[in-house]
Amino acid sequence: MDATLSNQYDISDATIEAVARDEKRTSEAICQGLEQGTIVVLGSADGPVKPLGIGAGLRTKVNANIGTSPELSSFQAELHKLEVALAAGADAVMDLSTGGDLDAIRRGLRAACPVSMGTVPIYQVIAALGDEQDVGDVTADDILAIVETHAADGIDFLTLHCGVTRQTVAALAQQPRICGIVSRGGAMLANWMQVTGLENPLYEQYDAVLDICKAHGSAISLGDGLRPGAVADASDAGQIAETVVLGELVLRARQAGVQAFVEGPGHMPLDQIKANVILQKRLCHGAPFYVLGPLTTDIAPGYDHITGAIGGALCAAAGADFLCYVTPAEHLGLPTDQDVWDGVIASRIAAHSADLVKGVPAARDWDDRMSRARADLDWTNMHHLAIDPGRVSTVRGEEATLDPEACSMCGRFCSMKVKLTDRQ
Amino acid sequence: MDATLSNQYDISDATIEAVARDEKRTSEAICQGLEQGTIVVLGSADGPVKPLGIGAGLRTKVNANIGTSPELSSFQAELHKLEVALAAGADAVMDLSTGGDLDAIRRGLRAACPVSMGTVPIYQVIAALGDEQDVGDVTADDILAIVETHAADGIDFLTLHCGVTRQTVAALAQQPRICGIVSRGGAMLANWMQVTGLENPLYEQYDAVLDICKAHGSAISLGDGLRPGAVADASDAGQIAETVVLGELVLRARQAGVQAFVEGPGHMPLDQIKANVILQKRLCHGAPFYVLGPLTTDIAPGYDHITGAIGGALCAAAGADFLCYVTPAEHLGLPTDQDVWDGVIASRIAAHSADLVKGVPAARDWDDRMSRARADLDWTNMHHLAIDPGRVSTVRGEEATLDPEACSMCGRFCSMKVKLTDRQ
Repeated sequence: MDATLSNQYDISDATIEAVARDEKRTSEAICQGLEQGTIVVLGSADGPVKPLGIGAGLRTKVNANIGTSPELSSFQAELHKLEVALAAGADAVMDLSTGGDLDAIRRGLRAACPVSMGTVPIYQVIAALGDEQDVGDVTADDILAIVETHAADGIDFLTLHCGVTRQTVAALAQQPRICGIVSRGGAMLANWMQVTGLENPLYEQYDAVLDICKAHGSAISLGDGLRPGAVADASDAGQIAETVVLGELVLRARQAGVQAFVEGPGHMPLDQIKANVILQKRLCHGAPFYVLGPLTTDIAPGYDHITGAIGGALCAAAGADFLCYVTPAEHLGLPTDQDVWDGVIASRIAAHSADLVKGVPAARDWDDRMSRARADLDWTNMHHLAIDPGRVSTVRGEEATLDPEACSMCGRFCSMKVKLTDRQ
Repeated sequence: MDATLSNQYDISDATIEAVARDEKRTSEAICQGLEQGTIVVLGSADGPVKPLGIGAGLRTKVNANIGTSPELSSFQAELHKLEVALAAGADAVMDLSTGGDLDAIRRGLRAACPVSMGTVPIYQVIAALGDEQDVGDVTADDILAIVETHAADGIDFLTLHCGVTRQTVAALAQQPRICGIVSRGGAMLANWMQVTGLENPLYEQYDAVLDICKAHGSAISLGDGLRPGAVADASDAGQIAETVVLGELVLRARQAGVQAFVEGPGHMPLDQIKANVILQKRLCHGAPFYVLGPLTTDIAPGYDHITGAIGGALCAAAGADFLCYVTPAEHLGLPTDQDVWDGVIASRIAAHSADLVKGVPAARDWDDRMSRARADLDWTNMHHLAIDPGRVSTVRGEEATLDPEACSMCGRFCSMKVKLTDRQ
């Protein structure tokens, strides 16, 4: 491979070639994206974690959040959710555990996970506090030490809420919010800053953070600690002030040879989604955009995988690169295996709907093959080509059909069976 | 009420007032929409069918399709689906039955249905053919007779594929389709036209059709017989040629004192949805737009309620007024009760997401009340305000939580419990 393919992130040519093959792009295109910072490449062709490209011109990727909570802290349960997420087609997984032996859980999931994995180190800082301690007992060194522990464990991307600063938190006061700070990591840091009177060490000591990430090859997922948690709170001064700071931090990461991408909302009405993508790409210098949802209404707990698919499709079509799934259990509880499955599938539907219109090579082939199978009443191929063949079997198998060619909806009135000589 | 509220559709002042109250608009605004043809009003304050407004400036409405098939023709099963659809919040229901005693099923459902009901009369024309007959045995008079039967049964809106003409079907040949004609009614009519060599009587005898609708007070839902059934087939010459014809027929309906709205796709990539709404509203003189989905990808059978919610939200936000649900069983079989429920809820999420951004009065109140309940950790109100309180109970009840205030996702790390004095 040509020497021009070298890059400041120490990503091997073999890894870049693997991403290029997966994406049906040239290695040069991947390298150019890396150099410009519009593409990040996680994993490695030489290691246990499969290479993954995220960014402009690439297939929209899907992340599944798993992990224990203080109330439900079974490693085995989360290990099983990892398997479910992978089977459903998640491109990456985040371990958001906050209950149980966090080091053991993270390392156990990492060892079992063949795809890129992310974590939110600040959770562990707070979770580690004893009953007699409070957030004021945490030191800046504690925070950086946990960041280093996660990076050293081979975590591919670390969500760090470096943009929750004294200035951006103050900006929240400009426009009253209904839900305040809904990011758990953002709320923890803002609380720590308020109690200690200090600046966020992830911002103040950002150079040290970059050194840690560079040393271990971890990318930074710049967390949106001030993301809106209600449609009423979207696109306010606090959110946008944080995005401005994240843009500065993207540039500093690139200069330090650390890959960076940026997280985004959250809850957001349909008419603000495209504007947010344009703004994030502009303010953050084209860095890949990783969004949670966005949820286009607040009123559908139990169905937020659907609400998130609506927002995610529109957001990805406008340029978002990486969708964090939302499960039906969002706002209600820790997801079950079924919730994990449904969340991944819904996000993949959103991602693929977007890929059809954002210039992803060959995305449309899948749809066209499915539509041809439909026109031919070729149930075998319809089954194979479905995003979830098992679900097709379940739905179709629920009812006996008298005509094996058609289905119980239309029977002999199936429009595909009405032959017209002038039909294409 | 002022005499200026009279209208050419013989809709009573009490009915208009009922719609105005429901929509938080003035009666004058409803009347103006009626006069301009941008709003249709179904049902009546004086009869058994609840008044329903559909159109510009009003809440986006949701229709649920039920009905037997040749393979599954139980009236009781469809009656139960009607109850499920109503319980889930459907604004209107269509009986698309094609199996069993169609007159008895339609009349039974009509008698049991307190909301507006629609049908597709052409299905019954074809279903009534004996085993020894073929489509060529159907006469134009047969078709008009069934239209009259449905109208006389008090069906509020009739889907009539009047735009499937010799000219528009010929336009299909300009651009090869993968899936041809996927509308069952459209395929039946095109087949009849091909076999008989005649023009579509619903077009050729449109004045007679209008007389029938006027006599019985039925609205016309101008069917999109040439709608795309694959993303590859969207926005092609056949589809658009039909829309041009439907625009002409909207004007003729208004002149005859018959309310009309227009049906739309179907399968459509995200980037064509807004253009289609603009085009439909322009070509069809602002008539309300009633869309099936649209489905933003072809690859998700088993999950087309989600695919339809993505497209429906975007379509309604762009101006579509009435969403026909798509259930998880679409492309696979006749929906079960659960599919009906899931289809209605998904479409309502799409409709409400759109209402937040299309100027529907007070739509945002619902979200803001939910978000305030979240900020207050007020689970009683979160439950009451959810689009499906039963689902909230199911998801939340699946796991014991140690902290009744929070949930098993975050437990004591709940961001809402991190109190900041400067938080709004």
